[in-house]
Formats: sequence, C-alpha cells, structure tokens
Amino acid sequence: MRAEFTMRRRVQFAETDMAGVLHFSNYFRYMEEIEHAFWRSLQLTVFPRDADPHLSWPRVATSCEYFVPLRFEDELEMALRLTKMGDKSLNYEVEFRRDGERCAVGRITLVCCVTRPGSFSPTAIPPAIRAKLEGDGGD
Amino acid sequence: MRAEFTMRRRVQFAETDMAGVLHFSNYFRYMEEIEHAFWRSLQLTVFPRDADPHLSWPRVATSCEYFVPLRFEDELEMALRLTKMGDKSLNYEVEFRRDGERCAVGRITLVCCVTRPGSFSPTAIPPAIRAKLEGDGGD
Amino acid sequence: MRAEFTMRRRVQFAETDMAGVLHFSNYFRYMEEIEHAFWRSLQLTVFPRDADPHLSWPRVATSCEYFVPLRFEDELEMALRLTKMGDKSLNYEVEFRRDGERCAVGRITLVCCVTRPGSFSPTAIPPAIRAKLEGDGGD
Amino acid sequence: MRAEFTMRRRVQFAETDMAGVLHFSNYFRYMEEIEHAFWRSLQLTVFPRDADPHLSWPRVATSCEYFVPLRFEDELEMALRLTKMGDKSLNYEVEFRRDGERCAVGRITLVCCVTRPGSFSPTAIPPAIRAKLEGDGGD
Repeated sequence: MRAEFTMRRRVQFAETDMAGVLHFSNYFRYMEEIEHAFWRSLQLTVFPRDADPHLSWPRVATSCEYFVPLRFEDELEMALRLTKMGDKSLNYEVEFRRDGERCAVGRITLVCCVTRPGSFSPTAIPPAIRAKLEGDGGD
Repeated sequence: MRAEFTMRRRVQFAETDMAGVLHFSNYFRYMEEIEHAFWRSLQLTVFPRDADPHLSWPRVATSCEYFVPLRFEDELEMALRLTKMGDKSLNYEVEFRRDGERCAVGRITLVCCVTRPGSFSPTAIPPAIRAKLEGDGGD
Repeated sequence: MRAEFTMRRRVQFAETDMAGVLHFSNYFRYMEEIEHAFWRSLQLTVFPRDADPHLSWPRVATSCEYFVPLRFEDELEMALRLTKMGDKSLNYEVEFRRDGERCAVGRITLVCCVTRPGSFSPTAIPPAIRAKLEGDGGD
Repeated sequence: MRAEFTMRRRVQFAETDMAGVLHFSNYFRYMEEIEHAFWRSLQLTVFPRDADPHLSWPRVATSCEYFVPLRFEDELEMALRLTKMGDKSLNYEVEFRRDGERCAVGRITLVCCVTRPGSFSPTAIPPAIRAKLEGDGGD
C-alpha cells in the first residue's frame, strides 16, 4: 500500500459555527476533498462526466473523532491513508493536524458501484483503478 | 430513559449532490437538528444566548451507517434516542426512516463543557438538565 | 398573480457562523426551500425524477438585502411572491420576517431549461405549469 | 485603488447539486473565501480572535449573476476588486472565470461594525485598515 497522501486546507468562515469552531459536519467534507485530491493525483476521478451508467463510490460508513477544536483561518495538514481494499470496497483514514498536533481522525468505507442518478449497484473494483490505488506499476 | 423522540424532515435540493442523493455529510446536520429539537421539546437550549462563559456540548465522536440512499423531496422520519448518559457525556442514536424503511443510523457522543468562543472545558452535566433528559420529574 | 406563499423555518446551529448569526449565504438556501415548497403546494416539482432530458430552473440572477441579523433558534416567517413571469423566466421575491419585523429580502430570476446533467437550454414555460403558477384554473 | 486580487479554487463534490452543477448559493461562499484571502494577503483578518468587542464586516447586500454553469472538479480563477470604499462600507466585485471564460460575477456590500456575538453597530473604517485596502503606503 501507498504511504500517506497529504494536502493543506484552511478553515473558512462559513465553515465555523456560533461556538467559534469548525462545525463537526465539515470534517466529513474535508475528508471527501482529500480523497478526491488523492484520486486526481493518480489521474483518476471519482465521478467521470457524461458516462451513464458509470462507476461511483457511495459511502456505507463514516466516523470521526474530535480531539482539539479548529478555528477560523487555521491552516491544517490532512493526511489520507488507504487502510484496506476489498473486492468492492475501500477504507480510508484521514488525520487532521495543526502545527503537528493531531486534532481529529476520520474513517470512511466506500463501495464501488455502478451508478445511475439516485441508484447504486455494488460491483468489483476495476483492475486498472485497483493498480493505481495500490501504487503498483508505478507513477 | 425516555422513549424515542421523532421529527419529520424533507430532503432539500441544496443538500443533494451530483450523484442525485442526499450528501453523506448532511446526515450529521440532520442529527444535530433533531438533537436540538429534542432539547427544545424539554424547554432547554443547547446554546444559551448572551451567557459568557456558558455550557455547550461539543461532539467528541460521530458516526453514520448508510443503507439506502435518500433523494430530493423524500420525507424522512428521524427518531432520536438517548442511549447513555455519563457524568459529563451524552450518547445519542438517530435512525433515518422513509416509509418505515431504515435508511441510515447515526451515533453521536457529546461532552458537557464550559465554553468561551473557540475553547471548551469538560464539566459535570447540571442536575436540572440531567433530570429533564432522563424524563424524571415529568413533563 | 397569486397572493404570497408563506412558510415557517427555524435557524439551525450549523447555519450560523462564528459571528453568532445566520450566515449570509444560507438566505439563498432558504429562498430555494420556500420556492420548492410553493411548487409542491401546486402539485409540481422543480426537478422531476428519472426524466432525462427534463425541465429544470437554473438561476440567472440572485440577490439579497440584509436588515437585521438572525440568530440560532429564531423562528422566521418567509413569504414568497412571484413578481414576474416571462416566456421563459420567473422572478420571485422572498421576505424574511421575525415577529413581524422585516429582516431581509431576496430576489431570484430563474430560466426554464431543458436539462441534462450539467447542461441547460432555455425553453418556453409549459402552459400547464404557467397556469398553476398563475393560480388560474383554480386549485 | 488596487488592481484585482486573484486566487484559484476547484469545485468540490459536496458543492454540486443533483443538477450536476455548483449550487448557486456556493458562489457566495467562494466570494467570501477570496475576500478573506485578500485580507490575509494584506496581513489583515476580518475577524480578530479573542477581541470582544471587535470589528467585523457583516454584509448588507449581495448579488450574483450566473452565465455558465460550473461543474465538479472545474478549476476556477476568481478575481476580486474593491470597487468602492465609503466611510463605513466596502463594495467588492468578484469574477468567476474558467479557462478565461467569464462564468459568473458577484457583488457584495459590507459595513464596518463593532461586534459582539449576534449584534453589530456601524462604525468608521479605521485608517490603518483603509490604507492597506487602498494599497497606499505600499506593501
């Protein structure tokens, strides 16, 4: 498996709430952003345009633990690791760090699906995608 | 402990994504909405105005499992149960149902905190709030 | 033209920001919610499922003026009026009121379009929809 | 007045809707992001931490015109110009461009306010901030 993939992300005003911190639901959006950036780094996209039906990757389980609140204009480092790849599913873990401190950690389980608008049927992860995610055959 | 608290909620357009379904992060917003409606039903508020410092209830852990996708204009029933109350923490579970079908289930752990903008210190749940949440002394 | 259509809506926690008020971008989401509720009240939907191509109603211009900030758990009355109907376009105005006080007013211009995922071609508003929006032929 | 300030921004999945495009409300969030990035580029922040009361900049009017829909993973260039500075108010215009094409343009009017949680009183823009926004005294 690959080493971790990282990106930086700044907390935006609209993402805070009246408690003065990053709203807890937005960590899930951040996780999705780094997941998609990881795919782009492999010349992949999670949602190919204009293909109908096509593959997509709905989540079947998500979770997050919060250790330290994050605030407006904080600049985070997020680190994503692919922790497990099944026949049809992927597991990611994302760490949220600020100045090296671990502030939160999230986990996502996705299933590879043949997709039409609003409907999903699980299917095996195509070998070409599997190879890229595993980091084999080298890029 | 109390029986479940329920409310109805319709999926809004801005809450969908290009896969044609309710975006997975929005289930966490829905969970928060029913939690706050539950508190209002007890003549409580999670965030008293104009008190500084005051109590608030940051999340320390959240999770959701997704069984069936939800779509624009679907009308859901959400059911919240307080599954555990510690000295300083609360655990909720929220079920998402459509026409009686269980579509998703989420869980949240909150900690009672003395709060100033952007900072939180854990503290014991006040007896008056505890009694209301437990449904004792009856309303 | 019809009289105004009204609905009530409570400000949710995740919709506030660290300034302690409803974030200005969320007024646009509220406007869309009342617009869609108005259509449902006429047994219409802005986005018919499973039709491809179908009609949809992208915005070409939106605006909002803000007079009084709105806060967590405020219960608003929103009032929508269809202010103009062209061959292919609609203009709505939405007032946001709290306890009778006018807190904000928004305006939206939409165009009737034949829609495929991500693309839009303007077209005349169908007579059946026009009649319902005008309130003729009575419901 | 300064020349335009620019930044790049990619459309994220959670920002799309079931019509397959960037939801119209999110343009307002993008406008706020570039406004805050512009302030950071001047070593300013729109919302100083831990000051109570402090200055903040609520919007009194916002608008957006939409010419071309934007889609998932599109990379935009946004360009912000300060179009007017009054005693207490600022006017910005933001252009959204993709591959040089003008896709949308937004406008915001803000008022400089002394702020406590949930309340705002207009006040004159401090000279030090005014000088930085005007680009005088050179940085």
